[in-house]
Amino acid sequence: MKQTGNRGEDLRARAQQVIPGGMYGHQSVSLLPDSFPQFFSRAKGARLWDVEGREYIDYLCGYGPNLFGYGFEPIDQAAFRQQMLGDVMTGPSPLIVELAEAFVSMISHADWAMFCKDGTDATTTAMVVARAHTGRKTILVARGAYHGSAPWCTPRPSGILAEDRAHVDYYEYNDIESLEGACRKHRGDVAAVFASPFRHDLLRDQTQPDPVFARAARRLCDEAEALLVLDDIRAGFRLARDSSWATLGVQPDLSTWGKCIANGYALSALLGSDVARKAASSVYVTGSFWFAAAAMAAGLETLRQIRDTDYLERISTIGARLREALHQQATNHGFGLRQTGPVQMPQILFEDDPDFRLGYTWTGECARHGAYLHPFHNMFLSAAHGPEELTLTLEATEAAFASLKLRRATLQPIPKLAGRLG
Amino acid sequence: MKQTGNRGEDLRARAQQVIPGGMYGHQSVSLLPDSFPQFFSRAKGARLWDVEGREYIDYLCGYGPNLFGYGFEPIDQAAFRQQMLGDVMTGPSPLIVELAEAFVSMISHADWAMFCKDGTDATTTAMVVARAHTGRKTILVARGAYHGSAPWCTPRPSGILAEDRAHVDYYEYNDIESLEGACRKHRGDVAAVFASPFRHDLLRDQTQPDPVFARAARRLCDEAEALLVLDDIRAGFRLARDSSWATLGVQPDLSTWGKCIANGYALSALLGSDVARKAASSVYVTGSFWFAAAAMAAGLETLRQIRDTDYLERISTIGARLREALHQQATNHGFGLRQTGPVQMPQILFEDDPDFRLGYTWTGECARHGAYLHPFHNMFLSAAHGPEELTLTLEATEAAFASLKLRRATLQPIPKLAGRLG
Repeated sequence: MKQTGNRGEDLRARAQQVIPGGMYGHQSVSLLPDSFPQFFSRAKGARLWDVEGREYIDYLCGYGPNLFGYGFEPIDQAAFRQQMLGDVMTGPSPLIVELAEAFVSMISHADWAMFCKDGTDATTTAMVVARAHTGRKTILVARGAYHGSAPWCTPRPSGILAEDRAHVDYYEYNDIESLEGACRKHRGDVAAVFASPFRHDLLRDQTQPDPVFARAARRLCDEAEALLVLDDIRAGFRLARDSSWATLGVQPDLSTWGKCIANGYALSALLGSDVARKAASSVYVTGSFWFAAAAMAAGLETLRQIRDTDYLERISTIGARLREALHQQATNHGFGLRQTGPVQMPQILFEDDPDFRLGYTWTGECARHGAYLHPFHNMFLSAAHGPEELTLTLEATEAAFASLKLRRATLQPIPKLAGRLG
Repeated sequence: MKQTGNRGEDLRARAQQVIPGGMYGHQSVSLLPDSFPQFFSRAKGARLWDVEGREYIDYLCGYGPNLFGYGFEPIDQAAFRQQMLGDVMTGPSPLIVELAEAFVSMISHADWAMFCKDGTDATTTAMVVARAHTGRKTILVARGAYHGSAPWCTPRPSGILAEDRAHVDYYEYNDIESLEGACRKHRGDVAAVFASPFRHDLLRDQTQPDPVFARAARRLCDEAEALLVLDDIRAGFRLARDSSWATLGVQPDLSTWGKCIANGYALSALLGSDVARKAASSVYVTGSFWFAAAAMAAGLETLRQIRDTDYLERISTIGARLREALHQQATNHGFGLRQTGPVQMPQILFEDDPDFRLGYTWTGECARHGAYLHPFHNMFLSAAHGPEELTLTLEATEAAFASLKLRRATLQPIPKLAGRLG
C-alpha cells in the first residue's frame, strides 16, 4: 500500500482493507469532522495522544469509562496484582463476592449483583429477567434512548427483524401521559419499563429527569406489577454515589451499570432487588470473560475511590467552571450555546444551528487546537480534569470560536450528517 | 454471617446472599460434584489453586481461554505494556488494524475482522450480518449446539420469547439429509447455516465432523445463496492454525472466534470474506470495551505464538498420551471409557453409565486428588500441560479409578443431574 507519510492516514487506509467500513461502532469517526483522529497511541489522566503525537484534552473519556483518569495508578495496580494471581480461570475468584457485596452496600435498591462485560449484556439480561419474573412480554423504552446494540435495541435497522422487537414499545421520556398510555395499551403484559437517569440521546439537547415523571414511572410499574429498570450504564456514578434516581427518592427494581464502574476495565453489572432475585437465578446468561478477576479487582478499587474521595464534587466543580467559561466565550464571539444535562456529562449544541454546521465546525476547530469535544454526542468529565486541563481547553475553545466567527458566513451544510438529520 | 472456618464454604454462603442462586452461568458448580471448588485464588501454567490452597491440574482451561498457560509471560507482558500506554480510550489504538491484518493473513477465508468481547457478541453479529447480507430471516443451527447465551440461542428457556427464535430452525449435525430438509423447508429464506467445527455438546459423546457433511453444508449454502458461519469460538486454534474446517478443505463465509484468541484476555472476533463485507459495514454493533487495546496486544502476541511455535503439536501429543493412559487405567480397573472428540479437547464419559453416576463420582474423586476434570462438558488442554502435569494427573485419576471400583456397587443416581437427563 502507498504510504502517505501521515501515520493516521496510513492506518485509515490499512483499516479500510481489513475492517468493514474502515471502523465500526461508536468509536468510528466516519461522522465526525475531518480533523478528528481515528487512532490513539496513548492516554493518561484526561489526555489523549493520537498516532501523530498530537495531544488532546479529552471530553469523551473513552465514551464514559474513564472516571478517575486514564492510567489511574491505584486502580491499575489493583488490576495488575490480580492479573498476576489469576484473571480468567476455571471458576471465579473471591473478588466476585466482595464486589457484589460492595455494590449491594453502596446502591440502595440492590440486594444482589450479576457481572458481565458490556452494557448490552446488562440491559439484555435485565429484559430477560423482567420477562422471567413477570411471565410477560412487553418492554417499554423511551423513544430515541440508547440501551445497547443487540437486535432488540440497536439504533440501526440493518439485519434486524420485526420479531426482534415485536414486544418492545416506546414512550416519550419525561411524559407521564405517554408512559401511562403505553402501560394502558399493554395492560396485563408489561414486563418492564426501561428509563435512563436523564435524557442523553444523540443529536439533541439533554433533558434532566422530571422528578414527578420518575415517581410516576415507579407508581405505574407498581400498579402494573412490572419491573422498573434504570439504565445507569452511561450516567452511573457521575451523578451520585448511588443509583442516579436515588436523589429523586425513586428506587428501581433493576439497574444496569457499565462504562466507568472499573475505570476502563471491561466490566458491567446488573443489580437487582429481592423481588427479582428468583427470576435472575432462573435465566441462563454467561460469557467467557464475565468472571475475569482483574476487572473485578479494578471495580472494587473504583468503588472504594467513589466512596472515599471527593471525585464527584471535583468533577461537578470543574464541569460548572467549563460550562460558565464556554458560555462567556461564546457570548463574546456572538454565539449562543445550548449546554444541557448535568455539568459532569455536558451536551454542547449551538443555537440557530439546525443542521449542526456551527457545532460541527467548532468542534473540528477545537480538535485542531487540542480539545476533543463531540459535536452531537454527550460528553463525560473525569476526576483528572483539573484546572490545568481546563485552562488548556479554554485556550483551544477560544481559538475555535474566533475561527468559527471568521468562517461563519461561508459555512456549508455537512454532507456526512445529512443522512442523520433527515 | 456464621463462619465455618472453611474459606470456600464461607464464600459460598456469602455468595448466596448477593449473587442470584449463589453463582450463574457456565462457571457455577451447582451441577458438579461436591468436591469441586467454586472459587479460585490463583492460576499458573496448567494449574489452579482454590481458596483453601488446594492445587489442581486444570483440564478446563477457564473453559477454553487458556491456550499457552495461565500467566504466560510473553502475552501478559504484551498486554501490560499496552495497558500502561492506553487501553480503553476515546478511539482504538493502531493495534486493531495490526490484529485484523494478522487474522486476515492467518485465516484463509478471512478478508476482514471485527472485534468484540465475548463469543455471544460474535455469533449474534454473524446472525445480524447474514440477515443484512441476504435480506432474509432464517438461521439454521445444529440441534443441541451452543452458540451463546443471547435470547436467540441461550439453552435455557426462562425469560425467552417464541419471537426471539421465530426464525431459528434446527438440523442434525453431520446429517446431510437433515440439513437439506431444513434448507428445503425454508427455501428462499435461509440467511445462514451455523456449524461448529465438531459436535461438542453437553452431556454426550463428541463427534468429529464428517468431511462429506462439511462439504455438503458449503454446497447447500452456495445453492441457497446463504452464508456458512463456522462457530470456532470453542475449538479455534486447538485444531488448526487456520479456521477449523480448513483441513477439510471447507471455507466458511463468516467465522466466529473467542475464548483463547488472546490467551484469556477478553477478546472475541467475527471474521468474514469479501462477500459479506458490505453487510458487515451496514450493521450497528458495538460495546464500551470492544476497542480496548491491551486485549488486542495480547491477541497479537497470541497469534504470533500460534504461528511461530509448536504449541499445537505439543498439545496434541500430550492429549494423545492422556487418552491412552486413561484408557489403560480404566481397563485395569474394569471400566470402559468413551473418550471422544479431538485429544486437544477431550470429552470423557463412562460406558454403561446412562445416569452419569460413574463419571460423576470419578471426576469428584479426581478433584479430591488434584485433577480438575469435568463430568459432562468437553475439556481443553493447553501448551502448559507438560509431562509433569500429566504424571500428577495420572496419579489422581488412578486413585480415583481405585476409589470408584471400591464404591461401584453402592453408587446412587445423582439427584443434581436428574433434571438435566430427563
